[in-house]
Amino acid sequence: MASSNEEYILNKIDSPADLRLLPSGKLEQVCAELRQYIIDVLSENPGHLGASLGTVELTVALHYVFNTPIDRLLWDVGHQAYGHKILTGRRDAFHSLRKYKGISGFPNPNESEYDAFIAGHASNSISAALGMSVASLIKGEDQRHVVAVIGDGAMTGGLAFEALNNASTDPNNLLIVLNDNNMAIDHSVGGLSEYLVNITTSQTYNKMRYDVYRGLRKLNLISEDSRGSILRFNNSLKALITQQHNLFEGFSIRYFGPVDGHDVNYMVKVLNDIKDMKGPKLLHIRTVKGKGFKPAEESATEWHAPGKFNKETGKRIIAPSTIEPPLFQDVFGHTLVELASKDERIVGVTPAMPTGCSMTYMMKEFPNRAFDVGIAEAHSVTFSAGMAKEGLIPFCNVYSSFMQRAYDQLIHDLALQKLHVVLCLDRGGLVGEDGATHHGVFDLAYMRPIPNLVIASPMNEHYLRNLMFTGYKYDGPFVIRYPRGKGVLVDWKNEMTLMPVGKGRKLTDGTDVAILSIGASGNDVSKAIELVSAEGLSVAHYDMIYLKPIDEDLLHEVGKNFSKIITVENGVIQGGLGSAVLEFMSDNGYYPRIKRIGIPDKFIEHGSVPELNKLCGIDVESIAACIRNLVSFEC
Amino acid sequence: MASSNEEYILNKIDSPADLRLLPSGKLEQVCAELRQYIIDVLSENPGHLGASLGTVELTVALHYVFNTPIDRLLWDVGHQAYGHKILTGRRDAFHSLRKYKGISGFPNPNESEYDAFIAGHASNSISAALGMSVASLIKGEDQRHVVAVIGDGAMTGGLAFEALNNASTDPNNLLIVLNDNNMAIDHSVGGLSEYLVNITTSQTYNKMRYDVYRGLRKLNLISEDSRGSILRFNNSLKALITQQHNLFEGFSIRYFGPVDGHDVNYMVKVLNDIKDMKGPKLLHIRTVKGKGFKPAEESATEWHAPGKFNKETGKRIIAPSTIEPPLFQDVFGHTLVELASKDERIVGVTPAMPTGCSMTYMMKEFPNRAFDVGIAEAHSVTFSAGMAKEGLIPFCNVYSSFMQRAYDQLIHDLALQKLHVVLCLDRGGLVGEDGATHHGVFDLAYMRPIPNLVIASPMNEHYLRNLMFTGYKYDGPFVIRYPRGKGVLVDWKNEMTLMPVGKGRKLTDGTDVAILSIGASGNDVSKAIELVSAEGLSVAHYDMIYLKPIDEDLLHEVGKNFSKIITVENGVIQGGLGSAVLEFMSDNGYYPRIKRIGIPDKFIEHGSVPELNKLCGIDVESIAACIRNLVSFEC
Repeated sequence: MASSNEEYILNKIDSPADLRLLPSGKLEQVCAELRQYIIDVLSENPGHLGASLGTVELTVALHYVFNTPIDRLLWDVGHQAYGHKILTGRRDAFHSLRKYKGISGFPNPNESEYDAFIAGHASNSISAALGMSVASLIKGEDQRHVVAVIGDGAMTGGLAFEALNNASTDPNNLLIVLNDNNMAIDHSVGGLSEYLVNITTSQTYNKMRYDVYRGLRKLNLISEDSRGSILRFNNSLKALITQQHNLFEGFSIRYFGPVDGHDVNYMVKVLNDIKDMKGPKLLHIRTVKGKGFKPAEESATEWHAPGKFNKETGKRIIAPSTIEPPLFQDVFGHTLVELASKDERIVGVTPAMPTGCSMTYMMKEFPNRAFDVGIAEAHSVTFSAGMAKEGLIPFCNVYSSFMQRAYDQLIHDLALQKLHVVLCLDRGGLVGEDGATHHGVFDLAYMRPIPNLVIASPMNEHYLRNLMFTGYKYDGPFVIRYPRGKGVLVDWKNEMTLMPVGKGRKLTDGTDVAILSIGASGNDVSKAIELVSAEGLSVAHYDMIYLKPIDEDLLHEVGKNFSKIITVENGVIQGGLGSAVLEFMSDNGYYPRIKRIGIPDKFIEHGSVPELNKLCGIDVESIAACIRNLVSFEC
Repeated sequence: MASSNEEYILNKIDSPADLRLLPSGKLEQVCAELRQYIIDVLSENPGHLGASLGTVELTVALHYVFNTPIDRLLWDVGHQAYGHKILTGRRDAFHSLRKYKGISGFPNPNESEYDAFIAGHASNSISAALGMSVASLIKGEDQRHVVAVIGDGAMTGGLAFEALNNASTDPNNLLIVLNDNNMAIDHSVGGLSEYLVNITTSQTYNKMRYDVYRGLRKLNLISEDSRGSILRFNNSLKALITQQHNLFEGFSIRYFGPVDGHDVNYMVKVLNDIKDMKGPKLLHIRTVKGKGFKPAEESATEWHAPGKFNKETGKRIIAPSTIEPPLFQDVFGHTLVELASKDERIVGVTPAMPTGCSMTYMMKEFPNRAFDVGIAEAHSVTFSAGMAKEGLIPFCNVYSSFMQRAYDQLIHDLALQKLHVVLCLDRGGLVGEDGATHHGVFDLAYMRPIPNLVIASPMNEHYLRNLMFTGYKYDGPFVIRYPRGKGVLVDWKNEMTLMPVGKGRKLTDGTDVAILSIGASGNDVSKAIELVSAEGLSVAHYDMIYLKPIDEDLLHEVGKNFSKIITVENGVIQGGLGSAVLEFMSDNGYYPRIKRIGIPDKFIEHGSVPELNKLCGIDVESIAACIRNLVSFEC
């Protein structure tokens, strides 16, 4: 650790090249300073604390040993990558993390040449790194190293396994670092997780194997020219000493570890030893999420992304408790328990987001009827479909942008068989600081073409509860899409009522223009209407509730009575509600002027939700302006 | 084997209950008859021969040992399931296999209670079976067995791995049968495949373990009450004898095998032994694809789905070679080689469909630059993205309906980073006999909302080549979607030319109505126009070529000059070309009457392509009728 009279180093590291000039004796000090810097900044500017504290030593070791950015370094998910950002020229910019026009919360190649690949959704690193490794061979750049750092949580994703399966057969020079903290955001689950715990308890064998390998290599008794030779070495060694079955070697990937991921000097040594070995290899390191900040170590899920905190006392700074509307996710969580307590057929499923979607309430109340299946969105849907086929009623909760991972399962396993699963898409619409990879803006457009689906979105907490109740009663696939963050009602706990499938509702009468909205955007529409009403405009407002089946009676009423229509949705402008309304009007011989408000055809950056809403023209003021323009337009 | 004077049994088996009444001594005869029946029928009515010949003994053993349909039996993919269909009440209906209104080529719960889950796309069986197994426990029906039969090819899919990872932690009573023939449609690839070959060579250990297990069980020395006990047994045994690392036991799933999958009596014995063991277990059987029909055994890929054949001579019946247009897939395959021979940056990627998409030409010509990544669609896209990030130009070929498996990778890894990958979607549109799970009808609608994508579809072989050339030159994600089957040009090998991105073309002038089509449907539009032109109608026809970016100049021309427009696409009616045209016209103040022709909002069954085109109203006659109706309509 840095003693108080040592010179501060971090300020002098403007790139990994600076780091590599340091003697190895200084690395522990760099780690200490880097850790403190992350704590300092994040205590005031909220971000993902725990994962990046856990990878401080790994980050320093990797940039010390590898020649980045010539060597490629891929951070899976990228919550782990704050230290990497700080060491790669973004130390001062780190204060702008996740802010509008500031640096991204995830690795982003548009931001830095050190960010080798995009990393917002888990489990893509091995696949992309394998591609990069194969490319370097084809291009004759095989001196280049490609390193993928993947958490044990992300390792359960199907994409990671598909890539592992492929890693052994394609010629490549890939190093996978498995950063094992036994956590995703919540605790890791599944056979892999159990397996990794077991492997750690048999360190002796692996340590011995590594030591033998080093010894033989020094004596030039093994060659590095071909993969065959080292594999034979492994096999013969196995025949000599007590066995450890190894999952990764089942894939013909050389396994090293586990090693202490907080011992920077040892990691430097191991990385130097193995980096020039030919063929795919995996280094398993054990780390502690939140390492070096006591409260985060002790309560990793809470400190995954803690918001502001006092770095001295270790207390999270939580806004004074005023009476405010609840989070949509909590309304989901409590309502699920309420429904489940009355019907034993109801079960809950989430892919690794129990805290984020508040499935935790169900897990606590009915532990045998709530399933965290790990980072495995595709499986979460098919698993739910299997349960539904046998008469259970699964509520499967997946973040909207992660649902993209289960698109085929939605079509093939759920919709085609018309199975009774209530699919709850949390984080629908713009999500704010997590940025382009996390905005849940495609869902309405990609789901609408799927036959047999009911697709609904509630304007507020009461409607979320009503829709959950309706989905529970409806015998078929039923999707409910709602936003991140708070609702709008303090008294959120209404008596749930059935919402007739495919029926919307009229909120205000009007004559100048009709606005058709879906979901929570309707609240902004209401505010916009208040603004323009004060100016004398007369606006009808319809909350469609259902995107599919769409309310045809309502649309006939609108088509007959209005020549000017605005559609509003917190989703992409092509293919969603606006397109559905256009299709209906065209098919039924209405020719109103229709203005569609939604997310424009580009990836939306990160920033606060109000900033992004304004950027996309879906905020109150933009909606009001659109109304004024359309009313003043002479058809 | 059945001797000639034995009574024919198969005709008396109307359900598995009939099979279970037979003495075990008759099972070999049943297998022989079943195998011959499959050969007899498929020689005249084409279908998937090889896979189902390989599972004859397994099918008989499973239905003999398990109490279907109370016990649930899931066939992954379902090419394997013809024997299952024949034994479960569909023996006579088997002649109607894959025909319009006949029985489906895949397990389909709507067809039979013995088909426990839909099975058109690979790798979903373990996930669905786990759901069903967990449901049986929750419902107190834990005497029920759930069996998933999955091929070694399907086992490489990410969904299968996600489910394996989950199988060990959820309480369940699942049996996975791994049907290992070292083949998908083409040879299996990847670490798993190598692994399974290795495991087979160390039968001794596994056989010993199984025998010891049986012995201890008979002596009541091991208990079956909890999972823990058997796991301890495994571990201690491992300590006793030479080790075999086992990938599945890495997931805490008990492994048995490999056993000879063509020894029906031994499989009955093993299945009886292990079926009541608690906890998840896997039985690894080795089979030969095409077993019992020599030509199919010797050339498994060719005989995967051979078409008609002479069952006596073993010759495939191939239509006399007239000069006909080539398959679109072959134009792709040859053109890729042509491009790749001029630019070393070009590489090819396919997820387990080298023969089906004709990547085989590239694999033969440039083996180091063509990658079959196994059944792993998601990985195929991200792997391609990784190579593109390093400056290669991957042509990644995925069947349209399987591309649903890589939707997130398309958004997150490809489009967001604007990487130069040419994504070729084969089997776009209705595919015919493979039915609802395989129709590639959603692609246009689900891709159009994604920013940065170029989406194109050629009307014929020349345009496919031109688009491949254009995609090769265009620095960004470029999607080319084309249909299954034959093109329309005999002289297909044109000089490739650049197609300006976002530009369509006018095929015919006209005044009464404008038709905008995309892709090969344009050929049917041309024929329809010929029909109605003879009746005096004047129809303009535009081939859009690009769905995105759409040709705005062309659409302005149409909007200004026509009050009646028809759009035609071989894809779902919501969200695709028709919706794009509606959106453009609305946004730009044109109010033509627009009739959209496409696939209606329901899953389309199986049948020949002409039958299905007619059913969906996208055939020549339906298009002509639509033109007549629209022209006669007074706007």
